[in-house]
Amino acid sequence: MLPTIAWKEGTIVMIDQRKLPAEEVYVTCRSYQDVAEAIEKMVIRGAPAIGVAAAYGLALGLWTLKQSEDRQAAFNRIFLRLEKTRPTAVNLFWALKRMKRVFEENMDISFERLKQRMLDEALSIEREDIETNKKIGIWGEGLIHDGQIILTHCNAGALATAGFGTALGVIRAAFSKGKKIRVFADETRPFLQGARLTCWELNRDGIPVVLITDNMAGYLMLKGEIDAVITGADRIAANGDTANKIGTYTVAVLAKEHNIPFYVAAPLSTVDFDKTDGSGIPIEEREPEEVRKIGGSCLTVPGIDVRNPAFDVTPARFITAIVTEKGVAYPPYKKNLRYS
Amino acid sequence: MLPTIAWKEGTIVMIDQRKLPAEEVYVTCRSYQDVAEAIEKMVIRGAPAIGVAAAYGLALGLWTLKQSEDRQAAFNRIFLRLEKTRPTAVNLFWALKRMKRVFEENMDISFERLKQRMLDEALSIEREDIETNKKIGIWGEGLIHDGQIILTHCNAGALATAGFGTALGVIRAAFSKGKKIRVFADETRPFLQGARLTCWELNRDGIPVVLITDNMAGYLMLKGEIDAVITGADRIAANGDTANKIGTYTVAVLAKEHNIPFYVAAPLSTVDFDKTDGSGIPIEEREPEEVRKIGGSCLTVPGIDVRNPAFDVTPARFITAIVTEKGVAYPPYKKNLRYS
Repeated sequence: MLPTIAWKEGTIVMIDQRKLPAEEVYVTCRSYQDVAEAIEKMVIRGAPAIGVAAAYGLALGLWTLKQSEDRQAAFNRIFLRLEKTRPTAVNLFWALKRMKRVFEENMDISFERLKQRMLDEALSIEREDIETNKKIGIWGEGLIHDGQIILTHCNAGALATAGFGTALGVIRAAFSKGKKIRVFADETRPFLQGARLTCWELNRDGIPVVLITDNMAGYLMLKGEIDAVITGADRIAANGDTANKIGTYTVAVLAKEHNIPFYVAAPLSTVDFDKTDGSGIPIEEREPEEVRKIGGSCLTVPGIDVRNPAFDVTPARFITAIVTEKGVAYPPYKKNLRYS
Repeated sequence: MLPTIAWKEGTIVMIDQRKLPAEEVYVTCRSYQDVAEAIEKMVIRGAPAIGVAAAYGLALGLWTLKQSEDRQAAFNRIFLRLEKTRPTAVNLFWALKRMKRVFEENMDISFERLKQRMLDEALSIEREDIETNKKIGIWGEGLIHDGQIILTHCNAGALATAGFGTALGVIRAAFSKGKKIRVFADETRPFLQGARLTCWELNRDGIPVVLITDNMAGYLMLKGEIDAVITGADRIAANGDTANKIGTYTVAVLAKEHNIPFYVAAPLSTVDFDKTDGSGIPIEEREPEEVRKIGGSCLTVPGIDVRNPAFDVTPARFITAIVTEKGVAYPPYKKNLRYS
């Protein structure tokens, strides 16, 4: 599996997720502004992946700084720019805060050493994310049984993370244990992460995958063709309410109606313990053209009014279990997500 | 409003619904085979509209017949070809049966008079469909209240019928009564009838419409932004189970979860009293490329496995009321759809 993002000689290289699977193109970010734009324009997306990108962006911002500049002022400028790229996924803020702590703890070392220390921290965040996903896979694969058909929404795979994936990590772990599973991938309009990224990833790994449009899951559940649902998350409140790609809530309602388990897989860095429930999670509304167009062609009346919420919040009561690197948490999540 | 379909000097002219709204192109059918292909390829679609098209197709098949040919053999050939175009919408079979009865009742008249009689019947089917839709509008508009926001799925408008529409007919009737309503239109993948046709129709009529992707309705319902749902139907079983465009069932489940009324609007010709429930309604699976592509571009891994059921069946327990030209039927539909 190609890495989603990598540090390369003072630049950050990302696979352009807008172009997959038609083209495997890499984007090179030479400044923190480039990284911020790449996050905003979804060159890179997926909550853990944008956390890693933000950490690298901070490191790159300092890396490219002149010795003579005020490093505290520069840090603040870079931090604020990266912080305002996307509002919903909490991993972005989690990674920035972690980088900020390292910066503040190392104010007195030389600038050269500080830059290296910040880069090391970003590299650690990337490496730990992969390890975390492997642990999520180990815990989660026990929920998936031989012969089952699993529905997933959006892409919570290697591309949404530093590698391996969260929801797709669980699927990869179950598959590599020899469980004969099959996956239905929701295409996930408007950005088509399911059609473009999940199908591409699973197909490369030889995991059987069938593409459906977002409005077909209900039909398949009613016919008994789906055994479990697993998705990633962009932000989980302390009570288990989960923000994830738009459409996740609909899938969760359908799963409950058909008594199908609905699982969320995410690192603990996705849990926002400061939010008591999902009502405080900001939901990004993106530009209307994403809904009006696919691949440059307008699919509707030009300029027609559009809504484009990029996420929704699934109340905890619809979620059977949440898988993190620490284990499988069942309700009540307020107590069980703390692993105390 | 332009007519969906019209008889014109021994040909049938249809607006090409695959090209809307980018282009207003008309297709001229010069043989019954042309009509059959137009139905199969969805140049024309929508249950009542394909009923009208099939009736015209039968008339055209006889119209273009040579005097010397065996008219019974020809009729059977034309009938069988049109009958196998699409399996789910019952209006196709209803219209063909109605035409067959007229053919059989007029075996002894001259061939010229028979051809005219058959054409007159097709014209009647078209004219009656518009009248029926207006009646559905009158009955149904009472269900829609001033200031409400209505969700519709697919296109059950003028383009899905001979004119005016069923679900959109109800919306048109409410709007023309001065009720300040707004409409959310599901884009309705894979064929995008909502994005392409419903938005186009409502926008032309000045009825406020907002386009959403199919996975957004749950989010909007949870936020209290949808007051009622109304859709058309392709086939309604005697107990009220309703086959309609894929995704309708999902919307119905969501509506029930949020205590939002879910209405179906359709002519009685859509009710198949021979089917006691929805389990006997055949569901068309269409070609995979419809899901893999939009506007000629592949959106996923070429050749990836796909499911493409074109319809689903919403069990009657999810349906608040069914509006026909005879009135508003509430459960139990088995009794109340007969208007006895």
